[in-house]
Amino acid sequence: MRIMSEEKQTKKLSIISFSGDFDKLTAVFTLATGAAAVGYEVNLFFTFWGLDAIKIKQGRSPVGKGFLPKVFGLMMGGLKAAPVSRLNFWGISPKIFRFLMKKNNVATLEELVDAAKELGINFYACEMAMHILGIGKSDLIPEVKEILGVASFLKLSEGGQTLFI
Amino acid sequence: MRIMSEEKQTKKLSIISFSGDFDKLTAVFTLATGAAAVGYEVNLFFTFWGLDAIKIKQGRSPVGKGFLPKVFGLMMGGLKAAPVSRLNFWGISPKIFRFLMKKNNVATLEELVDAAKELGINFYACEMAMHILGIGKSDLIPEVKEILGVASFLKLSEGGQTLFI
Amino acid sequence: MRIMSEEKQTKKLSIISFSGDFDKLTAVFTLATGAAAVGYEVNLFFTFWGLDAIKIKQGRSPVGKGFLPKVFGLMMGGLKAAPVSRLNFWGISPKIFRFLMKKNNVATLEELVDAAKELGINFYACEMAMHILGIGKSDLIPEVKEILGVASFLKLSEGGQTLFI
Repeated sequence: MRIMSEEKQTKKLSIISFSGDFDKLTAVFTLATGAAAVGYEVNLFFTFWGLDAIKIKQGRSPVGKGFLPKVFGLMMGGLKAAPVSRLNFWGISPKIFRFLMKKNNVATLEELVDAAKELGINFYACEMAMHILGIGKSDLIPEVKEILGVASFLKLSEGGQTLFI
Repeated sequence: MRIMSEEKQTKKLSIISFSGDFDKLTAVFTLATGAAAVGYEVNLFFTFWGLDAIKIKQGRSPVGKGFLPKVFGLMMGGLKAAPVSRLNFWGISPKIFRFLMKKNNVATLEELVDAAKELGINFYACEMAMHILGIGKSDLIPEVKEILGVASFLKLSEGGQTLFI
Repeated sequence: MRIMSEEKQTKKLSIISFSGDFDKLTAVFTLATGAAAVGYEVNLFFTFWGLDAIKIKQGRSPVGKGFLPKVFGLMMGGLKAAPVSRLNFWGISPKIFRFLMKKNNVATLEELVDAAKELGINFYACEMAMHILGIGKSDLIPEVKEILGVASFLKLSEGGQTLFI
């Protein structure tokens, strides 16, 4: 029982998904699905630009209430518009990545997100960031399990590995 | 006693604060204050651009000795000049964030830093980065508890959750 | 024996080295060598832009097979061409950093990489990123111990501190 409990502790991966960059979101979902596939409990906590990955309306459409959040929504633009953190020449890089991923039979970002849902990975959204950016629960995909504050997320991620991406 | 010791292990959050970006510094202090508020021991280790958050002289004033560190000091510019990691259109974004944070009654970055001091969060500064950037102890806010190397920080953060932001 | 096992758990540092930025790679190797110097087992997992740090051919030369990977290889350019994540004015910043590091007797990035090899730090390369970017094992320095997937890396890093940089 003692060993079991320790075993459980080490089989948890929690990621604070902060970035909205295409390559970093790919890293988040690659780590998450890879971990879930070998039995880890995986918790994804989307905050700030990372919220972009779990918005319902994809594409550069205004999301949230009020003028400024709308501007941010337009600028963020969702998964399909996610830029690469480096070398993002006029949006060409994400397309090259997608092409290379397709060509080499690697799962694309959208496929990784779908896989994450299938694998029962826990999606959480950051209460404070949603508040700042004017995003409501109804703007997010239904797979989002709960809207959490920092304390609750830390409690969830205790005893496992936690990454900030 | 055994249980107590384990309990203590999981109640520690350490953050290597590397970035000088407004949104990432906001993430650092939101996580730190959120954790401290529910009883965590919180250690913040400021290094490279993150040192900007704990400099006494805020604003684009030269800090450190020698010509090149001065140039970096001018470029870094402190908390009020911290850019957003994405979409930093001529410095407008941090202002929009601040506005949204004020409007939605969310603590602003400066308020979060003050809260961190109040909550007894441990501030540490990275010895090597200070050396490279020509920053002395007297350039930093008095709340900085100690100037540390990597080994000491790792020892401090052992047994808890550690993030690199 | 119980205490020994716990001791071992806390003496491991694993870093997912994702960024190709000069300052972030410096952080990776400073943390890694600092930890190894005080007896930690250190695992470095190079992925995406981070792979740049462990390529044999340094400088802006094409690496990998096929046209698009070649373009990426040219753009990435290896350690000597690694940009700084902020304030990278026409490549001047890394040079200023190198100058300051030399001037202040701090190990430069190349010296840190050499130290990492000397200290027996474990170098791993990410299978999927190599696949996407068209990089083969023969393109990487011989110190790379193994090419791994996510699950294997998570297993390796269990029970220690894990960072994403």
